[in-house]
Amino acid sequence: MALPAPLHGVIPPVCTPLDACGEVDTGSLARLVDHLLDGGVHGLFALGSTSEAAYLTDRQRAVALETVVTAARGRVPVLAGVIDTTTARVLDHAKAAARLGADALVATAPFYTRTHPREIAAHFRHLRTATGLPLVAYDIPAAVHNKLTPALVRELAADGTLAGLKDSSGDDGSLRRLLVSLGGRTARPSGPAPGFAVLTGSELTADAALLAGADGVVPGLGNVDPAGYVRLYDAARAGDWPRAAAEQERLVALFAMTDAGPESEMGRSSSALGAFKAALQLLGVIEGRATALPQVPLSEEAVAEVGRRLKDASLAAGRPAP
Amino acid sequence: MALPAPLHGVIPPVCTPLDACGEVDTGSLARLVDHLLDGGVHGLFALGSTSEAAYLTDRQRAVALETVVTAARGRVPVLAGVIDTTTARVLDHAKAAARLGADALVATAPFYTRTHPREIAAHFRHLRTATGLPLVAYDIPAAVHNKLTPALVRELAADGTLAGLKDSSGDDGSLRRLLVSLGGRTARPSGPAPGFAVLTGSELTADAALLAGADGVVPGLGNVDPAGYVRLYDAARAGDWPRAAAEQERLVALFAMTDAGPESEMGRSSSALGAFKAALQLLGVIEGRATALPQVPLSEEAVAEVGRRLKDASLAAGRPAP
Amino acid sequence: MALPAPLHGVIPPVCTPLDACGEVDTGSLARLVDHLLDGGVHGLFALGSTSEAAYLTDRQRAVALETVVTAARGRVPVLAGVIDTTTARVLDHAKAAARLGADALVATAPFYTRTHPREIAAHFRHLRTATGLPLVAYDIPAAVHNKLTPALVRELAADGTLAGLKDSSGDDGSLRRLLVSLGGRTARPSGPAPGFAVLTGSELTADAALLAGADGVVPGLGNVDPAGYVRLYDAARAGDWPRAAAEQERLVALFAMTDAGPESEMGRSSSALGAFKAALQLLGVIEGRATALPQVPLSEEAVAEVGRRLKDASLAAGRPAP
Amino acid sequence: MALPAPLHGVIPPVCTPLDACGEVDTGSLARLVDHLLDGGVHGLFALGSTSEAAYLTDRQRAVALETVVTAARGRVPVLAGVIDTTTARVLDHAKAAARLGADALVATAPFYTRTHPREIAAHFRHLRTATGLPLVAYDIPAAVHNKLTPALVRELAADGTLAGLKDSSGDDGSLRRLLVSLGGRTARPSGPAPGFAVLTGSELTADAALLAGADGVVPGLGNVDPAGYVRLYDAARAGDWPRAAAEQERLVALFAMTDAGPESEMGRSSSALGAFKAALQLLGVIEGRATALPQVPLSEEAVAEVGRRLKDASLAAGRPAP
Repeated sequence: MALPAPLHGVIPPVCTPLDACGEVDTGSLARLVDHLLDGGVHGLFALGSTSEAAYLTDRQRAVALETVVTAARGRVPVLAGVIDTTTARVLDHAKAAARLGADALVATAPFYTRTHPREIAAHFRHLRTATGLPLVAYDIPAAVHNKLTPALVRELAADGTLAGLKDSSGDDGSLRRLLVSLGGRTARPSGPAPGFAVLTGSELTADAALLAGADGVVPGLGNVDPAGYVRLYDAARAGDWPRAAAEQERLVALFAMTDAGPESEMGRSSSALGAFKAALQLLGVIEGRATALPQVPLSEEAVAEVGRRLKDASLAAGRPAP
Repeated sequence: MALPAPLHGVIPPVCTPLDACGEVDTGSLARLVDHLLDGGVHGLFALGSTSEAAYLTDRQRAVALETVVTAARGRVPVLAGVIDTTTARVLDHAKAAARLGADALVATAPFYTRTHPREIAAHFRHLRTATGLPLVAYDIPAAVHNKLTPALVRELAADGTLAGLKDSSGDDGSLRRLLVSLGGRTARPSGPAPGFAVLTGSELTADAALLAGADGVVPGLGNVDPAGYVRLYDAARAGDWPRAAAEQERLVALFAMTDAGPESEMGRSSSALGAFKAALQLLGVIEGRATALPQVPLSEEAVAEVGRRLKDASLAAGRPAP
Repeated sequence: MALPAPLHGVIPPVCTPLDACGEVDTGSLARLVDHLLDGGVHGLFALGSTSEAAYLTDRQRAVALETVVTAARGRVPVLAGVIDTTTARVLDHAKAAARLGADALVATAPFYTRTHPREIAAHFRHLRTATGLPLVAYDIPAAVHNKLTPALVRELAADGTLAGLKDSSGDDGSLRRLLVSLGGRTARPSGPAPGFAVLTGSELTADAALLAGADGVVPGLGNVDPAGYVRLYDAARAGDWPRAAAEQERLVALFAMTDAGPESEMGRSSSALGAFKAALQLLGVIEGRATALPQVPLSEEAVAEVGRRLKDASLAAGRPAP
Repeated sequence: MALPAPLHGVIPPVCTPLDACGEVDTGSLARLVDHLLDGGVHGLFALGSTSEAAYLTDRQRAVALETVVTAARGRVPVLAGVIDTTTARVLDHAKAAARLGADALVATAPFYTRTHPREIAAHFRHLRTATGLPLVAYDIPAAVHNKLTPALVRELAADGTLAGLKDSSGDDGSLRRLLVSLGGRTARPSGPAPGFAVLTGSELTADAALLAGADGVVPGLGNVDPAGYVRLYDAARAGDWPRAAAEQERLVALFAMTDAGPESEMGRSSSALGAFKAALQLLGVIEGRATALPQVPLSEEAVAEVGRRLKDASLAAGRPAP
């Protein structure tokens, strides 16, 4: 399906449920897609960092993407992460994503290798030229150890290389500079890149990003509470900022579930991804909460803490998954 | 004077004008204080990073602080930075600041040395015990290479060690977590630390911080346009978020002056501090735009660029300083 | 072939020559393998960082590894890099490498994701269990943004998980601590991990690593001057440290070729890999000097500088490649 | 006294013993100086990082330096650290150091502020011009978060700004590039900066640095075992590299004392400085092992571990200090 221009709304990075053998649990994944669409989300981002894309084999990535596309049934656009180190490897993922029905691609700057702004620009331009799908830049310095500058993103937006940005940098000042350089919250439609979508991956400051003029939000926590983020988004669109902020506060409190796994025992990916999956299991959406190797699983104690966070945020635990 | 509880409003970190010999230009500094108070600011932060505190000798720091205190004439509280590597050295600055009439102290975590969260907590507790003045923690990882966690700040707020936080981390998600843990935007007065002040140093996202419930803003750019930040603050207090955001956008555009000095030629401190001082000179507030050694001065070309930014932001250049 | 225990000597990470279409130039690669074996090297490391493994598709990786294995004709062991983000993805590469005849695997810690020492240990243990080949840990914090601690490596060496370490951390103090913990330069054969190989990737301090008791060196610059590193190694083995150091100094001077591409224009990978390939082209070993996308190619001026470095190091330019 | 050209040998950074009130214990410090000179050291470095300079007030720094100068009685040169954020503040320390009889100054790049290579060069040039004493650059990125490049050091060596370098970067590859650019291990006396001293602060790879042509070593651990480092140095000067390496290995094992304080409980400064002081107390050299605020003190258990390391390294515990 064609993307709306600009792409907007709540577009969660879809978790990838795994079965006891570590394979993609397609039944749970399809239920998760329904859970998200029932919550009112505007798009789906498969194979993102929250989807454990960096942990899945190419075969597993294909299964996950195909499952999401199929389950979405064309109701919302499906973005596909094409996360790999450099251009040629990313292109292999891009071809697979196009074949499997993705509506847009989401690519990071090169990583593992020591790169340079000129090479980052060349990377996105090559990707754009070699694929037929809209391209969203994924700014995630915690993973790739480079920050996309506002100036570079503006340039690639203005020349049509990029259809959007998913900003997971946590640097809201930089995001604001980009938005202002594109025309600001009211004048962007007549700015240098009218259809360019600015999406924040900062699930803790979505209200702020929307106040600043962002088009949407890509919240990992949106797996657990999609309806909450949709309410936040709707309040913002309606100009009811106190209500948007109140919803954001409830979600910030809920986000504390990601601390359930202690830093002394596991990586931050394990604790956050483990918490999202434990919550989805407690809510009856997915069957198991396994995360991919080599992540440390959450303890029973940590899972209980996740449950308390759900309850505090007024999210009733659902029936056990079939 | 006693601090309001919580401390709030626009509290710019006051630039320290220097004369041709590199000494504090007290006349210019007194005029700058008047310029800020004329703009409606609610407090003054002397000897912060923007004040070039890290570049001033102890003698120069004393002259600068005394000048600010004197020029303020008790109209607003004066906070004094006590920036140094570790506890005993900071205490020497704290004694000087108390003697010179500061109303509160602003201290960072230890730096230069490799430290630890337990040591950072001990540092603030020692400072609090050994001084009679309210203590504000200065979270500035770009300078000290440590981030104060929301959990630590909450603990030190709740036990009375800290009277406030100046958050210059640029990590607005972390700031939001702190604010929520203190009760959130409406319930903070009945939360664990009712009079605790949360101030953002992120001059590009002040509207967002205020929407999130912050009490005030400490904007380096506020030296140049104090009235703009006061308008932003007033709009936020009045709940007029679109107006607050519009004012923020104008200030974000103005902030581009800090890029006038190219990264290939000078440090980011030089370009930002040089731009603020050049703007103040162009506005007729201070006499010279010299920055302290070993900073690279802005070129004439860069100063012209600063002038253009002032004009774009509708800030009329004033008369030359006497 | 079975690895010597411990693996030792000069084991260069083999560059991957590319043709004008960006595909592996197998003819040039085979000639490069002969060039290295003519220089007297003791092993070959295919698909390492210097091999541009992070830039090659899976198909290209297979072609490159197969070419190296075939060209080596069993004369020396061939190690294969299995560079990818996490366990399952690395295992896919490991299976391919085993099928193509690699004698050992070289794997990094997880990257892209935020990991933890426990997860790094689990990663290597899973890899060891799931593959039949000896496993060498590749410590390269510049790429993966984690340092393998001496304590962790010692543990994984002692329990048989690892057959060796390629230390590209540049942290020679940490390397020394590891070597001492394994028994030191004379007592390692009777230490906790007698056959464990310690290899340095620090091509600028190979003499020092050998003096400290390392078993070998994996020098990127060894592509250009394999005989130089073999002379260095032989001098060290013979206890002629002044001669080893003199050879090292010549190679340090030669290494300056990696600065030919200016930092303002390209990443450090581009300049180093571009210089090695330009040198190999000038020496008549490989046909073209193209590097993979999105790397910036060296300018003609930079290539001339590489040529001067070759001459200064008494490396005669060979005949043009056929 | 005039410095030898180049400065050379073992020049430990002298610990600063503190009494129960946190003041400099001058009696213990004088005994420590004698302990070092009895061990055969060639110089003393007061007010370095290991001296807790970053923790001492200006008054305490003066007491410490004066005590070291007096106790040295002109037997060896005394270098004084002038550690502070930027030029003017460093100059204040430089004046004090000159007045108190230091023979040379040791200064870092600017810190706390975001700086630039041009500003770092200007910093050292200003310091050199404004003081009459030889100036040694202190490259310590772990503290100042900037690395001095070999090219910059070579430039400042060749133009006479710097009399030497203390390299505490741990980047031995970079150190080697500097040494080669200055002429290498044999040709430095006829190179671009004949009297320039290259000193390594890497106490774990002193043998390697000396093999590479360094003039000396500034080992924190040299407080505990000065005679060991002198034996290492003498063996290196005599060309007996196996003996130098064996001595280095013993010292590497001894260095494990710095891990006695666990990372989960304290900063790395606390554990290392605490261990050195505990060892000196156990050896009967200094009276108390207190470290400055806000460092976490070593537990009794950790001190016992330090004692075991001393014993393993054949360092007999001395009589209790008087």
